[in-house]
Amino acid sequence: MSASRKIAFIGLGIMGSPMAANLVKAGHDVTGFNLTQPPIDALVAAGGKGASSIADAVKNAEIVITMVPADPQVEQVILGEDGVLANVAEGTLVIDMSSITPQTSIKVEAAAKPKGIRTLDAPVSGGEAGAIEAVLSIMVGGDTADFAEAKPILDALGTTVIHVGPAGAGQTVKAANQLIVAVNIQVLAEAVVFLENAGVDLPAALDVLGGGLAGSTVLNRKKANMIDRQFAPGFRIDLHHKDMGIVTDAARAVGAALPVGAVVAQLVASARANGDGSLDHSALLRGVERLSGREVK
Amino acid sequence: MSASRKIAFIGLGIMGSPMAANLVKAGHDVTGFNLTQPPIDALVAAGGKGASSIADAVKNAEIVITMVPADPQVEQVILGEDGVLANVAEGTLVIDMSSITPQTSIKVEAAAKPKGIRTLDAPVSGGEAGAIEAVLSIMVGGDTADFAEAKPILDALGTTVIHVGPAGAGQTVKAANQLIVAVNIQVLAEAVVFLENAGVDLPAALDVLGGGLAGSTVLNRKKANMIDRQFAPGFRIDLHHKDMGIVTDAARAVGAALPVGAVVAQLVASARANGDGSLDHSALLRGVERLSGREVK
Amino acid sequence: MSASRKIAFIGLGIMGSPMAANLVKAGHDVTGFNLTQPPIDALVAAGGKGASSIADAVKNAEIVITMVPADPQVEQVILGEDGVLANVAEGTLVIDMSSITPQTSIKVEAAAKPKGIRTLDAPVSGGEAGAIEAVLSIMVGGDTADFAEAKPILDALGTTVIHVGPAGAGQTVKAANQLIVAVNIQVLAEAVVFLENAGVDLPAALDVLGGGLAGSTVLNRKKANMIDRQFAPGFRIDLHHKDMGIVTDAARAVGAALPVGAVVAQLVASARANGDGSLDHSALLRGVERLSGREVK
Amino acid sequence: MSASRKIAFIGLGIMGSPMAANLVKAGHDVTGFNLTQPPIDALVAAGGKGASSIADAVKNAEIVITMVPADPQVEQVILGEDGVLANVAEGTLVIDMSSITPQTSIKVEAAAKPKGIRTLDAPVSGGEAGAIEAVLSIMVGGDTADFAEAKPILDALGTTVIHVGPAGAGQTVKAANQLIVAVNIQVLAEAVVFLENAGVDLPAALDVLGGGLAGSTVLNRKKANMIDRQFAPGFRIDLHHKDMGIVTDAARAVGAALPVGAVVAQLVASARANGDGSLDHSALLRGVERLSGREVK
Repeated sequence: MSASRKIAFIGLGIMGSPMAANLVKAGHDVTGFNLTQPPIDALVAAGGKGASSIADAVKNAEIVITMVPADPQVEQVILGEDGVLANVAEGTLVIDMSSITPQTSIKVEAAAKPKGIRTLDAPVSGGEAGAIEAVLSIMVGGDTADFAEAKPILDALGTTVIHVGPAGAGQTVKAANQLIVAVNIQVLAEAVVFLENAGVDLPAALDVLGGGLAGSTVLNRKKANMIDRQFAPGFRIDLHHKDMGIVTDAARAVGAALPVGAVVAQLVASARANGDGSLDHSALLRGVERLSGREVK
Repeated sequence: MSASRKIAFIGLGIMGSPMAANLVKAGHDVTGFNLTQPPIDALVAAGGKGASSIADAVKNAEIVITMVPADPQVEQVILGEDGVLANVAEGTLVIDMSSITPQTSIKVEAAAKPKGIRTLDAPVSGGEAGAIEAVLSIMVGGDTADFAEAKPILDALGTTVIHVGPAGAGQTVKAANQLIVAVNIQVLAEAVVFLENAGVDLPAALDVLGGGLAGSTVLNRKKANMIDRQFAPGFRIDLHHKDMGIVTDAARAVGAALPVGAVVAQLVASARANGDGSLDHSALLRGVERLSGREVK
Repeated sequence: MSASRKIAFIGLGIMGSPMAANLVKAGHDVTGFNLTQPPIDALVAAGGKGASSIADAVKNAEIVITMVPADPQVEQVILGEDGVLANVAEGTLVIDMSSITPQTSIKVEAAAKPKGIRTLDAPVSGGEAGAIEAVLSIMVGGDTADFAEAKPILDALGTTVIHVGPAGAGQTVKAANQLIVAVNIQVLAEAVVFLENAGVDLPAALDVLGGGLAGSTVLNRKKANMIDRQFAPGFRIDLHHKDMGIVTDAARAVGAALPVGAVVAQLVASARANGDGSLDHSALLRGVERLSGREVK
Repeated sequence: MSASRKIAFIGLGIMGSPMAANLVKAGHDVTGFNLTQPPIDALVAAGGKGASSIADAVKNAEIVITMVPADPQVEQVILGEDGVLANVAEGTLVIDMSSITPQTSIKVEAAAKPKGIRTLDAPVSGGEAGAIEAVLSIMVGGDTADFAEAKPILDALGTTVIHVGPAGAGQTVKAANQLIVAVNIQVLAEAVVFLENAGVDLPAALDVLGGGLAGSTVLNRKKANMIDRQFAPGFRIDLHHKDMGIVTDAARAVGAALPVGAVVAQLVASARANGDGSLDHSALLRGVERLSGREVK
C-alpha cells in the first residue's frame, strides 16, 4: 500500500464515484466535488470529505484527479476561470482521467506547465464494473517522474497501469482501444449475420471461432449479447460514437489512415441515428441486420 | 484412442503431410496419394502406405480424407472422372478438409448422396504448426451421425473438433474465421500506425490494449510481427486473398452484408498487388503504412 | 444506310425486341428466335422472320446477334450443344450484346476462333428507352476488322458505337460504366440526405450542384426521383446488383483496387436484401435514409 | 447592371483578387484589404481603393465581402476584436464567401444579429478560372431579403447565384458539392485503373462512358488529366482535404450517414500523406494506382 495522499477528486459520476471510494479504501485523504450533491454525500459516507466548489476541493490537495464526460467539461473544470489550474498550488499533480482528445490533454499540459503545475492524462478502460472492482486498465501520458508518483495511487484503481508516452499519449492509446473494440465488434456482427443466414449453428460456430486466431475479448464477452439479442449496456453506443469522433479526428491530425475505422465510425453513427444510442455497443449487430434486410425490433 | 480405421489420404502438402502422419501415429492404417512422390515416400517412412493413384489409394478405404488447395482441385479430386466418388465403395465416408466455398461442399454432398457415399466438410484453422502439433481447430459440416463417426479420427488432428451444421457449414465457419481474422489484423494495423504517428510507446501501448476489451488472439500473436516489421509467414496474404474471395462470395449468396469485410477484402487484394502476397497476413500493416505516406521497404 | 444483311437475332426480351425491330427498319433481313413465341410473332408483324430454334434461326445468317440476361444464358445459347457455334457456318460474325463478365466473352472468342467463327462482345447502355429509340451506347470488344463490319449494323441500334479493345473489352467498359453509375448515384443519395437533414432547400441545392463540377448525367436524370421519392424503374437494383458482382470480380481478376466500388457493391446488395430489388437504382437513397435513421416506407 | 454600391472586400487572394476586380468592373466602389500589400496595389490599379486595416476598409461600406482560407481566419476577420463586426455600422450586409463549416456561418450570424448586422454565407465553386471569368456558382444561405439585396452584386461574380436556405445553408451545399466531386473523381480513378489493367483503349472507353449515364462534369474536365497523368492544379488535394473534413463533420452534426464519403475522405487524406497535396484533386488516381500495386512517380 502506498503512503496516504491528499487527493481532490472532481467529477463523481458513474465512474468517478466508485473510483473515489476505492481511493478512500486505499487509505487516501479524498475530498470530492460534483455538480450534484448526492454523490458527495455518498463519498462522505464512505469515509471521504465533501467540498462546495472546485476551489474548495483542491485548496489543500497534493493530487487532483478529474473524471468528467468530455472535452468541454475538461476545458471548464481544469482550464476555466474557477477551475483547477486557477486554484491549485504550484507543484500540484493534476491527473485527468476523462476520455478526451489528445489535443485537449496537450493543451492542458501547455496551460499548466508555465504555472509549475504538473499534469498527466490517464484515461481508463473497463467500464463501471472495472471501476467498482478496481480492475481498470489505465493508460498514462506525461512525464516519467510524474507517472512514477501517480503509479501507486492509480494502482488502487486498476490492475494495468502503464506509462505509454508524453502528454496526450494516454488519450491516444484510449482512442486506439476504442477503435479496435468498435471494429472487432462490427466484424463479429458481420460474421454472426453471415453464419445465421447460412444456416450454421451459431453458438457452436462462435465456440470454435473463439478457440482460434479469430478469438478476442470482444468475442468472449459480447457473444452472449449477440446470440440472445440482449443489448443492455455495458458500454453505450452514444459514448462509443463520441470516441469514434475522437479517434478519427486524432488520426487525421497525425496523418494516419483509418480506412476501416472511418467506415465503422459511420456505422456507429448510424446505430445512434437509428435510436440505438443507449444500447450496448454490441448492438452494432442490429445495424448489420438492417443492412441485410432483417426486421429489427 | 479410437479404433484403427482404413484411411485414404489425398493431398500430402504442407498441411496434409503432417496430418496424415498424425493419423498413422494414432494407430490408423493410412494410405496416401499425392501428385508428387516425395511426400508419399515420407508417409511410408512414417509407417503409412503409398498409392499410385486416387483409385489405388481409396480402393479399400473406409474413410477418405482430402486436403487440397482450392475449389478446382476439390472438383477434380472428388468429383472428377478418376476421382474419389468414381472409385469408392458405397457407404464410404469422405471428409474434405480443404478450405473451399460452401457451395462446392454442398455440390460434393449432392453428387455423393445418390451413390450412397457420405460426406463431411471439415476445414481447419491453425496453420502448419497446428497441423504438426495436432492442435488444429476443425469445423465440421454434414450429418450428425457421420460427424460422430469422424470425431475420434479428427481428434487425432486437432484439439477443437466441432459440428457446426449441415453440409457446407464447416466451410461457412472457416470463411467467417478468415473474415474476422483479416479485419482484426487490419484494425490492429491501423491502430499501430496511428499510435506510432502520435509518438506513443508502441510496445507499452499494445500491452495495455491487450489486457482490455481490445485484446485478441491476433493482437497476442501478431504484435511482435508488427513491432519488428517481420512478416515471414505464418499464413500468407495470397491465401488470405483467396479466402476473402470465398467469404465475400458466400455472404453475397446468402444476403449477408459485409460492409467492413468488403473493404478489407480490397485491402488484402491491394497487399497482394503490391507484391506482399508471400508475406504473413500481418503485413496488412504495410498497406496502412502506404496509405499513410510512409516509405515501405 | 448500310447494305442489307442476313441477321439472326437470339433473345427477344425487353431490350432484344426493339433492337431486332430497329434492324428490320434499317432494311436488314432479320430472323428472330426466343424461348417464348409472342415476341417472335411481334417481330414477324414488324417485318422480320421467326425461327423455331437457334439452329433454324442461324442457318443462313451472315451475322448472329445474341441478347440474353446473363453469363449462364450466354454459355448455353452460344456455347451449348444446340447453340450458335454448333450451328453457324465458318466465317459468320457473332455479336453478343448481353452484359456479362469479360471472362465469358473471352471464353466465347476462344471457342469460336478454332472454328473460323468471328466474335464481338458489344454490350449496351441506355436501357429500354434507348433500345426503342435506337440511341444506345454500344461498347465493342474484338478485332478491328470485325468491328468495321459490325459498325454499320450497330449504328442502327445506337448513337455511340465505339471499339474499345480486344475480346472482353466491351464488357469491361460496360462494367466500368455500371461501377461509375452506382457510385455516382450513391454519393448523390448521401448528399441528398445530408442536405435535407441540414435544412437546405433541396431542389435549389441540386440545381446549383448540377451547374458546377458536381454535375453529372446521374444528377440530371435521377434528381427528380430522389426529390419525389419515386423509384419506378428505370434500371432495377436487381440488375445493378448483378453488374456490381461482374465489376468486382473482373477488377479482382486484373488486380485493380475498388475501395469505393466494393463498399457500394455492399450497399446495392443491401438495397436488394431490404426488398428494393425491383426499384430503380436511384432508390439507393432509401439505404442512406435507413443508415441515417429515417423511416423508409 | 445594378446600382453602384460601396463595398469593402477583405481577403485578396487567388480567388478574392479577381472577384474584387470584377466588382470594380461592374461599377461598384470597392475598397480592398489584405494582409499583404501587392494585391491591394493591384486592386487600386484596377480602379478600386486600398485600405490599411479591416476597420479602415469597412468604415463607409454598405456591403462587406470576406474571402479567406478557412474557419480560423473567418473567426478572426469577422468575429475578432478588430474585425468586421466590431467596426461596421448597424444595417451593414456582410457576405462571407469563404468555404468554411456551416457551424461557423451560423455562429457569425448569431454574433451579428444582436448588433443589427445582416449576414449571408455565400461560398463559391468554379476555382480561379471561374473567379477570373466571373462564372462562379454561388450558393447562398441567409434571409431572403438579404439575398435579394446581394443578388445583383453577386451576379457580377458568377453565373449561378442561388439562395438555398437559412444561415449556413450555402456552406452546406458547398460541402455537398465537394463531397460529390471527390467521390466522382475517386470512382473515375477506380474505373481508369480497372480499364487499363484489363487492356482496354482508355480514351475510347472514356468517350463512350461520357456519353451515357456515367457521364459527368468530372469525367469531361478531368479525363485528360487522368489519361496524361498531368496533375497541375486546378483544385489542390490539400484544399479538398480541408473540405472533406468540413463535410464529414457537418454530416455527423446533422446525423446523415456518409458511408462512401467517409472512405473517400480517408483516400484524400492518404493522397496528402503521400505528398500529393499540391496536385490537382484528379490525382486521386495516384492513390488507386498505389493500392493496385503500380509504381507511381
